[in-house]
Amino acid sequence: MRGCKYGTHRVIEPKGVLPQAAQKISNDMTIFDNEMLIQVQALNIDSASFTQIKETCGGDEEKIKAMIMGIVNERGKMQNPVTGSGGMLIGTIKAIGKDLTDRALKVGDKIASLVSLTLTPLKIEEITAIKMGIDRVEIIGTAVLFESGIYAKLPDDMEETLALAALDVAGAPAQTRKLVKKGQTVLVLGANGKSGLLCCYEAKKQVGEEGQVIGLVRSENKKKFLEETGLCHDVIIADATNPIQTLEEVLNVTNGKEIDVAINCVNVPNTEMSTILPVREEGIVYFFSMATSFTKAALGAEGVGKDVHMIIGNGYSLNHADITLDDLRESKVIRDIFEKLYL
Amino acid sequence: MRGCKYGTHRVIEPKGVLPQAAQKISNDMTIFDNEMLIQVQALNIDSASFTQIKETCGGDEEKIKAMIMGIVNERGKMQNPVTGSGGMLIGTIKAIGKDLTDRALKVGDKIASLVSLTLTPLKIEEITAIKMGIDRVEIIGTAVLFESGIYAKLPDDMEETLALAALDVAGAPAQTRKLVKKGQTVLVLGANGKSGLLCCYEAKKQVGEEGQVIGLVRSENKKKFLEETGLCHDVIIADATNPIQTLEEVLNVTNGKEIDVAINCVNVPNTEMSTILPVREEGIVYFFSMATSFTKAALGAEGVGKDVHMIIGNGYSLNHADITLDDLRESKVIRDIFEKLYL
Repeated sequence: MRGCKYGTHRVIEPKGVLPQAAQKISNDMTIFDNEMLIQVQALNIDSASFTQIKETCGGDEEKIKAMIMGIVNERGKMQNPVTGSGGMLIGTIKAIGKDLTDRALKVGDKIASLVSLTLTPLKIEEITAIKMGIDRVEIIGTAVLFESGIYAKLPDDMEETLALAALDVAGAPAQTRKLVKKGQTVLVLGANGKSGLLCCYEAKKQVGEEGQVIGLVRSENKKKFLEETGLCHDVIIADATNPIQTLEEVLNVTNGKEIDVAINCVNVPNTEMSTILPVREEGIVYFFSMATSFTKAALGAEGVGKDVHMIIGNGYSLNHADITLDDLRESKVIRDIFEKLYL
Repeated sequence: MRGCKYGTHRVIEPKGVLPQAAQKISNDMTIFDNEMLIQVQALNIDSASFTQIKETCGGDEEKIKAMIMGIVNERGKMQNPVTGSGGMLIGTIKAIGKDLTDRALKVGDKIASLVSLTLTPLKIEEITAIKMGIDRVEIIGTAVLFESGIYAKLPDDMEETLALAALDVAGAPAQTRKLVKKGQTVLVLGANGKSGLLCCYEAKKQVGEEGQVIGLVRSENKKKFLEETGLCHDVIIADATNPIQTLEEVLNVTNGKEIDVAINCVNVPNTEMSTILPVREEGIVYFFSMATSFTKAALGAEGVGKDVHMIIGNGYSLNHADITLDDLRESKVIRDIFEKLYL
């Protein structure tokens, strides 16, 4: 039997919503023809959720275990009722519904789910370990992925935590590859962060020899760090919440020419105008930062009379996991940095 | 002498911000070479701002006049310090800086400013009338438009209030014209509203005979109204905060096929998923509603594994005023509706 591709057939209450918005979903582990069954090894709990659970339980491991078991038994999914957030899981494929057998995947493959635990049917038999420092919960249990549920096969040639760190921001480099064209000038705001580094790498590959990739960072230290990576043609220092300063610093390295594409990877609010202002008419403004305000972007562009295409960074993009893991394989410099930070 | 194209040369405090973010800007009416001087006839005060002023003044006309004069004298612009909002102005061109003489505009032309009063240098000599019901303040005064300041020439062939009502949402139909291609299937959510009607009209023109424009409305009454306009091929009733219902109703009129473009003109929150879900892979999701949440859109698309292009509706788009006024001229049905509602 086929279920809804978005998993609504498993929603118990309230009726008519998507699984993410549901209070309770079915974690019956008999799969539909368009679902996959996962033998789960670990849950990577969202940081906001794990902090809330730890605090409520006063850091007591047994209480944390009981609280997580309670949530999952009650809701059929690991969605913290206070923070509303979930996380992701790691496991191996246990069964593939017959409508999904054309996927490049076989029983026994190790995967990470790239959709949130807030919409993933989960059943825990036993919690075997709580790794406090890294928000990780090791379990014996099973989960279901819907037809629309995205995932990534974990590669054999790198550490699991390294792959997970990169997959966490996979949407950004994948979208950068699709948006940036040969010969263009591209600004990456927040270029020294995880997604920023990957975007710089992809942008530099796409613009080719005639193009220019400009990395914006906040301080002299970060400038030195980014210059040493060689991932940008130019590195500038500016406060991304100050649009005039940002514009001036950008025009300094472009001979006064407005740029084609700006990519925002800055994790602080009020950086919309700094992203919009340096871009030419009909250029592209790509917001990957979750701190972006829709109205500030929409009204801000109107206020300065800029006909720019403003794009909401979609966490998913076709083949985004492969693109991002390939970047890690190709760029020794990024891999070295990620290994230092995330292993 | 030339000023900054965004008007930063007029910012008095704090230094280094754009005029909109400034506490105080210079309303010295000697213009720079890349500015225009406007003889102002009326201010259309933003509704939130006007309500706040009226309430503070207990509806007393003289107190309202004094309060507005006070704000403008203090800040050099009509930006309500409580709501932060402004409005727009109507006036005639009094002088054009020598660097802007290539514009299709001459002294004496009547215009509406399409940038906010929150960034427009303004000096009021006298407030001649307060029109309470329509948030309009008639004045004798002058204002300055920066090089980047957008405006629209008010046409001779229609009432001023009619033109203003349409110009208020000019970004939406103009972007629709650019995004929608021949033969496509397009969904307009909130199709019976001001921007929705204009988007339906533009979409129907663009998709041609092979295409399909679907208008989504909230009730049987609104369905009847929209069907009578003939602006859509199909009209469906659904709750735009219910993505599953919306998806089902859309697929009902497309023979189960996902659509190419969805345009959100709904002015209530939580309609992101209803806009995303019916769209095919690599299709376009265009959010014109100011109630859109950036994070709900970004995380929502990821949650259902949809590789869609999500666009932030820019209030400005090249020639957006002309496109919108032309729509009003071409479509008697829209003009009749707007005349009924806004004259």
